[in-house]
Amino acid sequence: MTHIDIREVALRDGLQIEQPIPLSAKLELLAAVAKTGVREVEATAFVSPTKVPSMADAAELAAELYNFPGIEFSALVASPNGAKRAIAAGFRSVEYVVAADDTFSMRNVGRTSTEATDQISEIVAIAHGNDVSVEVIVATAWDSPFEGPTPPQRVLDIATAARDQGVDRFSIADTIGTATPGRVSSLISQLLPIIGDLPLGGHFHNTRGSGLASAYAAVTAGVTRLDASVGGLGGCPFAPGATGNIATEDLVYLLTDSGYTVDVDLQAAIAAARVAKEAVGHDLPSALLRAGDRIRS
Amino acid sequence: MTHIDIREVALRDGLQIEQPIPLSAKLELLAAVAKTGVREVEATAFVSPTKVPSMADAAELAAELYNFPGIEFSALVASPNGAKRAIAAGFRSVEYVVAADDTFSMRNVGRTSTEATDQISEIVAIAHGNDVSVEVIVATAWDSPFEGPTPPQRVLDIATAARDQGVDRFSIADTIGTATPGRVSSLISQLLPIIGDLPLGGHFHNTRGSGLASAYAAVTAGVTRLDASVGGLGGCPFAPGATGNIATEDLVYLLTDSGYTVDVDLQAAIAAARVAKEAVGHDLPSALLRAGDRIRS
Repeated sequence: MTHIDIREVALRDGLQIEQPIPLSAKLELLAAVAKTGVREVEATAFVSPTKVPSMADAAELAAELYNFPGIEFSALVASPNGAKRAIAAGFRSVEYVVAADDTFSMRNVGRTSTEATDQISEIVAIAHGNDVSVEVIVATAWDSPFEGPTPPQRVLDIATAARDQGVDRFSIADTIGTATPGRVSSLISQLLPIIGDLPLGGHFHNTRGSGLASAYAAVTAGVTRLDASVGGLGGCPFAPGATGNIATEDLVYLLTDSGYTVDVDLQAAIAAARVAKEAVGHDLPSALLRAGDRIRS
Repeated sequence: MTHIDIREVALRDGLQIEQPIPLSAKLELLAAVAKTGVREVEATAFVSPTKVPSMADAAELAAELYNFPGIEFSALVASPNGAKRAIAAGFRSVEYVVAADDTFSMRNVGRTSTEATDQISEIVAIAHGNDVSVEVIVATAWDSPFEGPTPPQRVLDIATAARDQGVDRFSIADTIGTATPGRVSSLISQLLPIIGDLPLGGHFHNTRGSGLASAYAAVTAGVTRLDASVGGLGGCPFAPGATGNIATEDLVYLLTDSGYTVDVDLQAAIAAARVAKEAVGHDLPSALLRAGDRIRS
């Protein structure tokens, strides 16, 4: 029985493109998420509040996290300054995102992919100087919405830099939901010799229906950590109307039924998905939220 | 490059639980389906018009199929009498469904699973006596909505009977959309030594989000034929509100992006999905119908 670590990202990636909701609603969602038994939660992002208004309350949210002692919280950052803010707010784990293509990277953070990669060392210095762990996440690892398919070598180069700078974890993200099992397996098999013992994570969107298939392919190829969002909350700003993150409850059903173990309880995840749906006030793409667990007779 | 044969099932499994639509609307959908380049179409079912009113026009539909000369049409049957009707209507290929569990089988056709299996010989005699090919499809191959998980040995027994009776094709169906990649791979690996050179097909529903992941697992395990429905048309009467068949366009995207070849054109499949949506007058679960193909910038 292989164990897969699921990180719940509804609070950050899930809410990122939604209209901002009150802090109290976020805490209610977090309380429901905590009941699932999940060990890792991506809580927020320390980014521009102008660009991402739904994350403007990052520090206020951070101040409430002591109420959930069993969970390792992480915050997404896009610059050394963001890392400093996250650490000052109390986070012990930061995720630094590096886009693999220049256009996406320039639009997101005003730096090329190579410039963003070069900042890994500064992020690591800041974090490790404060006993904070660092994960590097490669965005647009398979495709860019602007440049088309990402050359795998670009992802391998970022992985090499991340490893050489001593990051604690490494992840690859299918930012626009275009990856499929064949390319997922291929990229991971090229990455494994580079990252060695670094824990490898995968982040998939279900925009084209292939998210769970890609996640499963990632697991069989060697990924041990997967991001997911209760209800499938979250979308991609580049594919309006498309479904978002793979749904935590759908992933839990698929993995456990296929013989993997996870920390997340299925029924509690479905309950949290209902809370997420209420919080944003619209339907969510989760399949289990509609169909329920296996036996319904 | 491995080639996967896709059979379009929107006309039968897709429309089965919908309110009956006019024959003219079915022919319009079929015309759109024909433009995708698909080589095999499940056109209708010769079953009780009282139980399945949307298939009551099976013979009338059959009389129009000469307009689509490049396609191999098949009809689903549930009894020797259904096979005779299908053949009389002009079908050169019949699919005989055997449910793997007794409760589902009794409710569906008033016979136990073993009794339905015993009728394979009669179906084969009728079909082969008319130079018509026979496929046996095992319904509830992984789970029954009434009895829970299906013992794999039951499926292997039906496969053995089908092989011994000389059927032309053999398929396994995840009738209620509960299968996941682990159990899909496991069952197929047990089936292959039994069925030998018989073409093996898979039929998956996306009810719990795992349909495409299961389909991909089936392909990597040795399945060479997959059923799919444009738009993801179709549901399961036992999971109200749940999504239905895996969507043809989502499957085509996933397979071709992963390095497989298919006969179905992606853009034509998306166009056919739009026709299907109009035909039934409600939204369909297809992901690509919303998100479109990969590059949208």
